[in-house]
Amino acid sequence: MALVNQQWLLASRPAEHAGLDNFRLVQTPVPALADGQVLVRQHYLSLDPYMRMRMNEGKSYAAPQAVGAVMLGGTVGEVLESRHPGFAAGDAVVGAGGWQQYALVQGPGLAAWRKVDVSRVPLAAYLGAVGMPGVTAWVGLSMIIAPKAGETIAVSAASGAVGSALGQLAKARGCRVVGIAGGPEKCAYVVDELGFDACVDHKQHRDAAALAAALKQAAPGGIDGNFENVGGPVLDAVLANMNDFGRIALCGMIAGYDGRPLPITQPRLLLTARLKLQGFIVSEHPDLWPAALRELGERVASGELKYRESIAQGIERAPQAFLDLLQGKNFGKQLVKLV
Amino acid sequence: MALVNQQWLLASRPAEHAGLDNFRLVQTPVPALADGQVLVRQHYLSLDPYMRMRMNEGKSYAAPQAVGAVMLGGTVGEVLESRHPGFAAGDAVVGAGGWQQYALVQGPGLAAWRKVDVSRVPLAAYLGAVGMPGVTAWVGLSMIIAPKAGETIAVSAASGAVGSALGQLAKARGCRVVGIAGGPEKCAYVVDELGFDACVDHKQHRDAAALAAALKQAAPGGIDGNFENVGGPVLDAVLANMNDFGRIALCGMIAGYDGRPLPITQPRLLLTARLKLQGFIVSEHPDLWPAALRELGERVASGELKYRESIAQGIERAPQAFLDLLQGKNFGKQLVKLV
Repeated sequence: MALVNQQWLLASRPAEHAGLDNFRLVQTPVPALADGQVLVRQHYLSLDPYMRMRMNEGKSYAAPQAVGAVMLGGTVGEVLESRHPGFAAGDAVVGAGGWQQYALVQGPGLAAWRKVDVSRVPLAAYLGAVGMPGVTAWVGLSMIIAPKAGETIAVSAASGAVGSALGQLAKARGCRVVGIAGGPEKCAYVVDELGFDACVDHKQHRDAAALAAALKQAAPGGIDGNFENVGGPVLDAVLANMNDFGRIALCGMIAGYDGRPLPITQPRLLLTARLKLQGFIVSEHPDLWPAALRELGERVASGELKYRESIAQGIERAPQAFLDLLQGKNFGKQLVKLV
Repeated sequence: MALVNQQWLLASRPAEHAGLDNFRLVQTPVPALADGQVLVRQHYLSLDPYMRMRMNEGKSYAAPQAVGAVMLGGTVGEVLESRHPGFAAGDAVVGAGGWQQYALVQGPGLAAWRKVDVSRVPLAAYLGAVGMPGVTAWVGLSMIIAPKAGETIAVSAASGAVGSALGQLAKARGCRVVGIAGGPEKCAYVVDELGFDACVDHKQHRDAAALAAALKQAAPGGIDGNFENVGGPVLDAVLANMNDFGRIALCGMIAGYDGRPLPITQPRLLLTARLKLQGFIVSEHPDLWPAALRELGERVASGELKYRESIAQGIERAPQAFLDLLQGKNFGKQLVKLV
């Protein structure tokens, strides 16, 4: 009896806010394997803010997600059957299987998959702290912020998959770390559990001026490096507190993914403080991944690098979990568990 | 009979737009020289946009100009009398003598002065193409834009002291150069006389969208490097045309020096195109000055590097010439001739 694969397609592009009607669930039989193919039973889907940008048309750093195709995304799972010499049934693998229960992989698509060691690192962590989000933090910190011990580093979306790794990596490099997160629970978590030195709750300080004042209290010596996930008033508030020669790694502007314009209101600060601001995409720096994954894997295995997951159960929950993620309703890495 | 020194003081800080009433002319006798002092008869004052920022209070990259003190600024002149072993009467010198006819220099202040060779380069050029503006162009181009031959470089305030040097240096490195300047005369000059490949007249395209469309015509392959002197809609228009991995050297935001807020309206472009934007101040890179001055001096001496000057005659004209500069009424390097 053929397996049935439940798949989420992009049904339509959002006009502004993404909604459930932008997604469509279909059921597709899994075909018999041909030579060179690998069938993966997916255990977890990764949900990440960048997916929202791909749902839009127009220029971005990645080609838009095609309408009518399976939603793209990172996944982990187990090889169910292999007719490729590089994989065997039972292998734990991480790849880009998209929003579906089974991934049939072949040809060039196999390059996005690799076997992982689950003896010391949990499988799901390869989608978070030891996966793309963790490497994103590592690359932005190492390549752009390049912090010195004693410097102060700020990070927005601090309790998220990227921000939590960023802050802990910066602490390990001897920095003072200030998080920005939404709500007292997330702020308490990044300080008490992740060891950040301070956290500013952006929900308590709704405009850039109030947020800037709160950041000044949290970082009285100013901010030397910023890892930006959010943009808008959050970035404005950070800019007002940047020290001379500060570095800003621009990783995301999730506050603007629904199409609202998000100006930088005082770009003159970039000039007067001689700041460097650089946008980057982690996938374009493959040379840095091995060192990043090595450090992240070691730190997770040893328990030094902590992380938290929000897990939605069942593939049918994927779109709502994704919409919640865009609203910051998740707490830590957002996953969908399929098995 | 003692010499009388006419000096312009900063009388008050501008509330918003700077005006003539912010300056006060005073006459001060020049004292007899003490040991270690040098008296310079100043031939030219340099007027530069950065002076406007120094007239404001508050954090900038330089300490504010003190109210009641002589307006700061670069100058060239001739040593009239020296009681310092490093200088002799008749030496041609460049330094920071401020808005006054005579500069009495001593102690640490002497470090800002150096003798110059006027056999191949005119004295006034040491305030322009072979001075701070030229070095500013050289440093931004070399350190931040780092262009490859064949790339397209844009520069705003293209006919000005910095912009005209920037474009010619970029041409010498094999780049395609697009200027942005105000008015058909300036645009014709940078193309016909300086050899830029194209020039967009921002007075013909008043908003960012129209300017962006005009830039797209002038740079159909997009912009790889931008040297930004202006900010506001000009920067917005450039950002909309930047190629992936473009570099922006942020040198000035003259459009905002009078205090108007000048947002970057679409900072997401910095992320999606993975741009690097860096503010810099030329005085903080003394290690680069020798190589810069060597190249600039050679190119001016050989006639390869062209420049144009707007010269106001007489010290009493300095404030009005400065206000005109802020409005872009100058054409090329703005000087005040004192002798």
